[in-house]
Amino acid sequence: MDSVSEIAAHHKNPRRWTLKRVELDDGRVLRRSEAKRRAVIEAARAVVTASGYAGATMERIAKQARVGKQTLYRWWPTKASLYVDCYADLVSPKAIAADSLDGLLKRLFHLYRTSEAGDILAGLIGDAANNEDARSAVSDGLVLGRWDIIAKTLDEEQADIDTVQEIVIGQVWRTLILDPARLDDAYAERLAAQALAAGKTQ
Amino acid sequence: MDSVSEIAAHHKNPRRWTLKRVELDDGRVLRRSEAKRRAVIEAARAVVTASGYAGATMERIAKQARVGKQTLYRWWPTKASLYVDCYADLVSPKAIAADSLDGLLKRLFHLYRTSEAGDILAGLIGDAANNEDARSAVSDGLVLGRWDIIAKTLDEEQADIDTVQEIVIGQVWRTLILDPARLDDAYAERLAAQALAAGKTQ
Repeated sequence: MDSVSEIAAHHKNPRRWTLKRVELDDGRVLRRSEAKRRAVIEAARAVVTASGYAGATMERIAKQARVGKQTLYRWWPTKASLYVDCYADLVSPKAIAADSLDGLLKRLFHLYRTSEAGDILAGLIGDAANNEDARSAVSDGLVLGRWDIIAKTLDEEQADIDTVQEIVIGQVWRTLILDPARLDDAYAERLAAQALAAGKTQ
Repeated sequence: MDSVSEIAAHHKNPRRWTLKRVELDDGRVLRRSEAKRRAVIEAARAVVTASGYAGATMERIAKQARVGKQTLYRWWPTKASLYVDCYADLVSPKAIAADSLDGLLKRLFHLYRTSEAGDILAGLIGDAANNEDARSAVSDGLVLGRWDIIAKTLDEEQADIDTVQEIVIGQVWRTLILDPARLDDAYAERLAAQALAAGKTQ
């Protein structure tokens, strides 16, 4: 299997996909691709800052990153799949690590206020609402693929993890679309309490 | 004030807007307009069935309803504002009336399975995520404008109405985008229990 098809195959399941670990059959690590991938992720952020998610096109991102459009589509078959990786890069498990759910939400909302992460997520939700490929990318990459991040804060809680996760995602999405300014520390505390209460009904 | 500007002014606050009550200064009731409005709402549904929300354009709806495009834009400045009214027509307070929250959700999910209402709502969420006019139409028309419908089922419950409403909206939106097939009677009961539990934390 050559490196490109391996990248494509792994991309369908982003949970197990880390380009850093992709090696060629002869043992070489794909350093050059990693540098290019980094350039694409940075370019995707810059294009959202300049034009918003709706205005971002694969063409502009390729140009900004100085990679061929063909290369871009080989790695990310859709704009949504690229932005799922871009979001996961900005909102990494390390960037929002905390030992409680409200601590995690505070760090998350801080990132939404200070980076492109909130705009990217809102754009992805909009994309997922209207198109099946984007729906899969969001479902696999952002929801299932990041399940552990919330689950880890719940070790001490007697709450159903799926329910807590669902309530958090639904509330963050709704608020991000209707009233993003509300995503602050006070709301993080309220949402954590609500989600944990809901999780104890199961 | 002539009838057209009155319609436009009221449209900004759909809660108070009912075309049936609009009268001209000379006392005439706009029966002809009401018939036309009905034709537009029906046409908007038919166009979603044929092409989905993303494929629906004001041009196609006007053609299908046999009204001028100008007339359409005078009544509904954006596609989102038209579909907010179309959704409110399909999912009327009467159509989902129930004496408990889980009863209401069961009727709501039944409508999503048997009409265009779910597709329209998913399309509106997508639109709202990417554009400010659509966000206002959804926020004013679907969220604030329909606040009473859920509130009425909560008379006997010791729960914070805003919290229950927010949880329900967030969960319905998330599920409609990620996995609409899950919206069944069992989920209605679970969601009602979760939302009421969350509402009791306040």
